Amino acid sequence: MKYKFSDNINRLKSSAVSDILKYSSMPDFIPLSAGNPSPDAFPIKEISQISDDILNYDPISILQYNLAEGYTPLRNKLKDFLKGYYGIGTDDDNVIITSGSQQTMDIFAKVICNPGDTVITENPGFVGALNAFRAHSVNLCGVPLKSDGIDLELLEKALKTEKNVKFIYTVPNFQNPTGITSSLENRKALYELAKKYDVLILEDNPYGDLRYKGKDIPAIKSLDKTGHVVYAGAFSKVISPGIRVAYCLANKELISKMIAGKQCQDVHTTAWSQHIAYNFMENYDFVAHLQKLREIYGEKAEMCKALLKKYFPKDIKYDDVDGGFFVWCTLPDNVDMLKFCKALIEKKVCVVPGNAFLADEQGISHSFRISFSTPTESQLEEGFKKIAETYEEMTL
Amino acid sequence: MKYKFSDNINRLKSSAVSDILKYSSMPDFIPLSAGNPSPDAFPIKEISQISDDILNYDPISILQYNLAEGYTPLRNKLKDFLKGYYGIGTDDDNVIITSGSQQTMDIFAKVICNPGDTVITENPGFVGALNAFRAHSVNLCGVPLKSDGIDLELLEKALKTEKNVKFIYTVPNFQNPTGITSSLENRKALYELAKKYDVLILEDNPYGDLRYKGKDIPAIKSLDKTGHVVYAGAFSKVISPGIRVAYCLANKELISKMIAGKQCQDVHTTAWSQHIAYNFMENYDFVAHLQKLREIYGEKAEMCKALLKKYFPKDIKYDDVDGGFFVWCTLPDNVDMLKFCKALIEKKVCVVPGNAFLADEQGISHSFRISFSTPTESQLEEGFKKIAETYEEMTL
Repeated sequence: MKYKFSDNINRLKSSAVSDILKYSSMPDFIPLSAGNPSPDAFPIKEISQISDDILNYDPISILQYNLAEGYTPLRNKLKDFLKGYYGIGTDDDNVIITSGSQQTMDIFAKVICNPGDTVITENPGFVGALNAFRAHSVNLCGVPLKSDGIDLELLEKALKTEKNVKFIYTVPNFQNPTGITSSLENRKALYELAKKYDVLILEDNPYGDLRYKGKDIPAIKSLDKTGHVVYAGAFSKVISPGIRVAYCLANKELISKMIAGKQCQDVHTTAWSQHIAYNFMENYDFVAHLQKLREIYGEKAEMCKALLKKYFPKDIKYDDVDGGFFVWCTLPDNVDMLKFCKALIEKKVCVVPGNAFLADEQGISHSFRISFSTPTESQLEEGFKKIAETYEEMTL
Repeated sequence: MKYKFSDNINRLKSSAVSDILKYSSMPDFIPLSAGNPSPDAFPIKEISQISDDILNYDPISILQYNLAEGYTPLRNKLKDFLKGYYGIGTDDDNVIITSGSQQTMDIFAKVICNPGDTVITENPGFVGALNAFRAHSVNLCGVPLKSDGIDLELLEKALKTEKNVKFIYTVPNFQNPTGITSSLENRKALYELAKKYDVLILEDNPYGDLRYKGKDIPAIKSLDKTGHVVYAGAFSKVISPGIRVAYCLANKELISKMIAGKQCQDVHTTAWSQHIAYNFMENYDFVAHLQKLREIYGEKAEMCKALLKKYFPKDIKYDDVDGGFFVWCTLPDNVDMLKFCKALIEKKVCVVPGNAFLADEQGISHSFRISFSTPTESQLEEGFKKIAETYEEMTL
């Protein structure tokens, strides 16, 4: 049979980027590309204890069908935590548990967008979210970032000129891929623009808890008095990505539609995973665990910065980082970035080419992303040496 | 903010049916509605042992990010099992692991259908699948069932007259809700029609392993020489639904698109769950476990049939069952089925009104579904007495 596929799926094209990324998980490659948590950051002992307890004392609760909206004690715990720790959530808000933030992105787009609607994203922006939106046949409009967050002038221009803008997608803390954290002023102005043009903001915050230097900046959702902001959080970077548990806090009406959307996608999130997350928050010192993570990733970031200083050619620019997983590196204009990334593959080093993160993948980028969360010190050192070597070879 | 939702989500309407079903999980109600596995069918000890082993010896494998297509050993195990046990799968086929069969339905529709395309379903058919399809804005065309499977004459008429038919959805074994198993002749004819009109068949087989009487009938996929059949299986009814693991076997090209679709929906299925399923198949006697399940549900079915015979009014018709979870009951034409189901709610008995399963929920049904998998013997007895009482009151 000759198969014909949907327009939605045909929008997810294989590209030069995927040709490079297929090397990222090969065992003999230096993994500077993966945004995986560090294995030593997983609370293995605690997860084992919790799993034992549930399977010994209440196995049916995790083996039987569960509720689409998620495990009630976990939802309540998250409401308390988000209120107490971030000052977000009102009586008008509710929480849905999802199977990872990727699903939050997907279900939110499904609930809000018709084909052809516009979604404004940071450009570059998180590729997983962009692909989730693409698969709903939306028009992606990328707005560039400045050092303090999304370019507000260009954002307003887009809001004025684009048709049927439904929401603005933003990662305000340690953005993936650029590492940029938007300022409080930028967040306030972004919220005001969302109100002015009556569009939603999808605030995705996977890295907010991983600031190891400087002061936390209030979430955009904490400014929200009008229901324009949808907040996406996840346990992937603070407990484990393999368990696939995340959450979304937003106005009740929106959450009830998302629950209907989730029900017909995967019925509910794996119950074991939800109980792990709940019990970890309830019976262990979650806040102390977050502090431990900040120490782990802070050390890694400092090590990475020292090695960057030692090995990186002066002409490759990069910004300082205070948190998250990533350093965004930019080549001089005269160096072909994709060619550079391909040359690195020859040396068994994998970084992520910048155009992977563009709203228009065919666009031009001179940047690439490296991650310091996964590689060891010697892998980082080895990788950076080869980057320097490759740069020298290409610019001789 | 005043929210506007997508056409997709607006297609999932709340209805008279959901008003009734909201009682189904209330603790003081007799649950004749839920299609949940029996708690005594869960292999709790084995799951505990497997979970312990992974968390002690290889925790990173389940805590780190995993592959979108699923855990490789589980995929290989399933290929072997499906080939050996059901005679399905060729070198042209591949397997994807999904987060429950609901996700198979959703991703398959996402990959194949554009809004306005037609999906042919059995009428009545499994409501979870119908809702997954509705959320892709397809046109559902319901074809009635006969006692040996889908009505082939009406099916061919639909294939001739409907526009852009993309696939036929069928549950050939112990169909949900009617309990009907289609004959081998019917399956062969269905496959021939799919070839003739060049449309796909989505064969959903959650209950095939639960036949406790009579002889297994070959899967439609086992007849497939042309790649027209997509086979959906799941662990929900044979290990646990709470773990959310299912699988789909189909032509490689189709599976590769489904992997792309899954990647941007939930990245991958919970790794712990996949390891539970794999180790259970690999290190325990899976086939003996299936036999044990047949005994559990066979006993429940026989008990149910005895009680139906004892308590049910003669005028409520129902078919014999040889497997699965359900008995489909039909009231005489002069009894208002929805009114009947609502009257049962007053007596704290919850059954599923037949129109929940119609391609057009506004259509007329005189039937309701009861499940014998969840209730205890005394609950069944109590429930049937109240059904008899209610019937008497309504037909006095």
